[in-house]
Amino acid sequence: MAVGLHDFPLIPEIKGVRIGVAEAGIKKPNKKDVVIFEFCEGASVTGVFTQNAFCAAPVRICQKHLGQAGSRYLLINTGNANAGTGRSGLETAMKTCDELAAKTGVKVESILPFSTGVIGEPLPVDKIIAAIPNALANLSGDNWQAAGVGIMTTDTLPKGSVRTFEFEGRSYTVAGISKGAGMIRPNMATMLGYVCSDIAMEVGVLQAILKDVVNRSFNRITVDSDTSTNDSCIAVATGVAGNSVVTSVDEPLAKAFIAAFTEVMQELAHAIVRDGEGATKFVTVEVVGAAEVADATKTAFEIAHSPLVKTALFASDPNWGRILAVVGRAGVVGLDVDKVQLHINGFEIARNGGRSPDYLEEHGKQAMAPQEIHIVLDLGMGDASDIVWTTDFSHEYVTINAEYRT
Amino acid sequence: MAVGLHDFPLIPEIKGVRIGVAEAGIKKPNKKDVVIFEFCEGASVTGVFTQNAFCAAPVRICQKHLGQAGSRYLLINTGNANAGTGRSGLETAMKTCDELAAKTGVKVESILPFSTGVIGEPLPVDKIIAAIPNALANLSGDNWQAAGVGIMTTDTLPKGSVRTFEFEGRSYTVAGISKGAGMIRPNMATMLGYVCSDIAMEVGVLQAILKDVVNRSFNRITVDSDTSTNDSCIAVATGVAGNSVVTSVDEPLAKAFIAAFTEVMQELAHAIVRDGEGATKFVTVEVVGAAEVADATKTAFEIAHSPLVKTALFASDPNWGRILAVVGRAGVVGLDVDKVQLHINGFEIARNGGRSPDYLEEHGKQAMAPQEIHIVLDLGMGDASDIVWTTDFSHEYVTINAEYRT
Repeated sequence: MAVGLHDFPLIPEIKGVRIGVAEAGIKKPNKKDVVIFEFCEGASVTGVFTQNAFCAAPVRICQKHLGQAGSRYLLINTGNANAGTGRSGLETAMKTCDELAAKTGVKVESILPFSTGVIGEPLPVDKIIAAIPNALANLSGDNWQAAGVGIMTTDTLPKGSVRTFEFEGRSYTVAGISKGAGMIRPNMATMLGYVCSDIAMEVGVLQAILKDVVNRSFNRITVDSDTSTNDSCIAVATGVAGNSVVTSVDEPLAKAFIAAFTEVMQELAHAIVRDGEGATKFVTVEVVGAAEVADATKTAFEIAHSPLVKTALFASDPNWGRILAVVGRAGVVGLDVDKVQLHINGFEIARNGGRSPDYLEEHGKQAMAPQEIHIVLDLGMGDASDIVWTTDFSHEYVTINAEYRT
Repeated sequence: MAVGLHDFPLIPEIKGVRIGVAEAGIKKPNKKDVVIFEFCEGASVTGVFTQNAFCAAPVRICQKHLGQAGSRYLLINTGNANAGTGRSGLETAMKTCDELAAKTGVKVESILPFSTGVIGEPLPVDKIIAAIPNALANLSGDNWQAAGVGIMTTDTLPKGSVRTFEFEGRSYTVAGISKGAGMIRPNMATMLGYVCSDIAMEVGVLQAILKDVVNRSFNRITVDSDTSTNDSCIAVATGVAGNSVVTSVDEPLAKAFIAAFTEVMQELAHAIVRDGEGATKFVTVEVVGAAEVADATKTAFEIAHSPLVKTALFASDPNWGRILAVVGRAGVVGLDVDKVQLHINGFEIARNGGRSPDYLEEHGKQAMAPQEIHIVLDLGMGDASDIVWTTDFSHEYVTINAEYRT
């Protein structure tokens, strides 16, 4: 049911990165539900994580381990989120890290654990530990698609993105995978995203770039307004490309990297929306003419979260009054409704706070018919703007979420 | 599909109030879609209205007319909200007021107009004007149920409530009707609510009581988080009971009135939730142990709005981890997740931020099975609390809102 989601791309080997998958049988049979990433020694690894106070045990451990030692392995499981599990959740997550550290001979602080799936159930630690040798035996530079499949939960398709760019005669690659379809309203990161490059870059520079770009990609998507307990996004620079290490975001090479990195991050973020639970539309909500960016962001998210707007999008029904009603309750200080303009897919729908004089129902129907919908809402107050990407709200969403655990 | 909604009660005549209904043919055939309330001269009339900046034209006129002259007539239509209609919306609403003023010989400022229905379409002013004589001819003290039916839109049942109380040998009645099933997250008032009493009470006292009680009734319900453009709640004290006029909220008679008035207002507010679009559950979300009331209110509304919680309620699925995930993202400053406790319908589900040691899946299933669900979430921070009432999220909700206009 994914909306305009392309096939998984051909991702070439990125030197310094190997991936292995294995079947632990956590929730579903015949599913490679454990994925291990291995990075070469000296790789820069950084991450951003959910701001949900009920963050999962693995998120807490990642935050602690990052910076204590060079990160060498990611240990990822699906089928169980290890969230809402209290103290025992931390213990079980650490047990899996200990096991991987013992098998690979690295410090336990060099292991970053990730879990995604049902909240509130104990992590099946023995099953994961049993799968680790098989995942290690499977390590290879060619396993990107297998990893994309391995981290799926309610996703219908694996999500990957890759860009290559040249700089001063040297070639670089940026590639990543992501997952997530429900409980999607990332706040600092997404459900799970992993982006790797062969560039050599100081970890502080990579961290600054990640924080900036995540705010223009994963932190601007929403499916259902529910921020996950497990959101994590990891960026890795292996340094194997051989450039002199990037030490500032202002270097020309950093700028070239940011351009490619942003494209990969946005494509991965959009892929999550395109595969959003029950999605039949991919919707871009652009708010312009705001006095401050915060007003634009807030208004765009309120539109993107409104069940009435989302069900109208599902029905391809030009019930645009619902969009104005959301704008009116979004809490924009000083809003003059008589200055508000609304365009959908290029059609002028509302002007001066009311129906456009040239509006015909036929225009509304044409505007709402395509799978890709671009809403432009002009507050008429200033020059600030922001963009949020979302989906519609369908019967399939209810079905998926009423039956997820069963 | 309404949840535990009782039959419309027998509402006795309230002296000083007459009601008339008529068919204007605004949206559906064979529907008495125009309702007129008439109050005796000297009645105290007050109201609270939506805080949506895109408030409808009739809301703006009500706010202007109230206080300019004694309110004598309410003119209500369904099928068209006259919202998002800009300047012409104000003109058409005033035309209908002018007509009713001319027909009844009162000042136009004594007319309060109300509209509910589709947003963004021009008010069919000629149809409403044509129906006014018939509605006036129909005026009677016995038309409460007809009015309850007349103001329905996607409601499946009319909503009414009545209480009588004795005070110092005199008998008083408080009665009201309400409507609304979708776009329900009132902010200062509800979709449409009208409550009348025969008590004699200064309008300022009635206003103070209305503002207080609306915050414990209509302003604590939510179906879909979308605040309407047309929310209006009107309270009327005709004074025909013959008591000496109540001039303070501290008088014993005022306290007796507040008790009855609160019961009527809460029953009407709950009726909207019970008849919420697609509702299969009536859900009470009680947050206790908060450091401040604002934290309790915010957390309760976030739980009540979460699509993932609502779909789990629809499925009677004890997927309680979703509730903890919402608490974690609700923005409660200083939250210690290890102190959070969760009970559902009396079953202890979570303790110390994780699954209760005594929890069994069977308990969760029993807790979630009934139509009436009482969630008690203890933040473990202090003594403040609040309660919000809401519904689940079903296929029927999507069907209703994907097809509302067609």
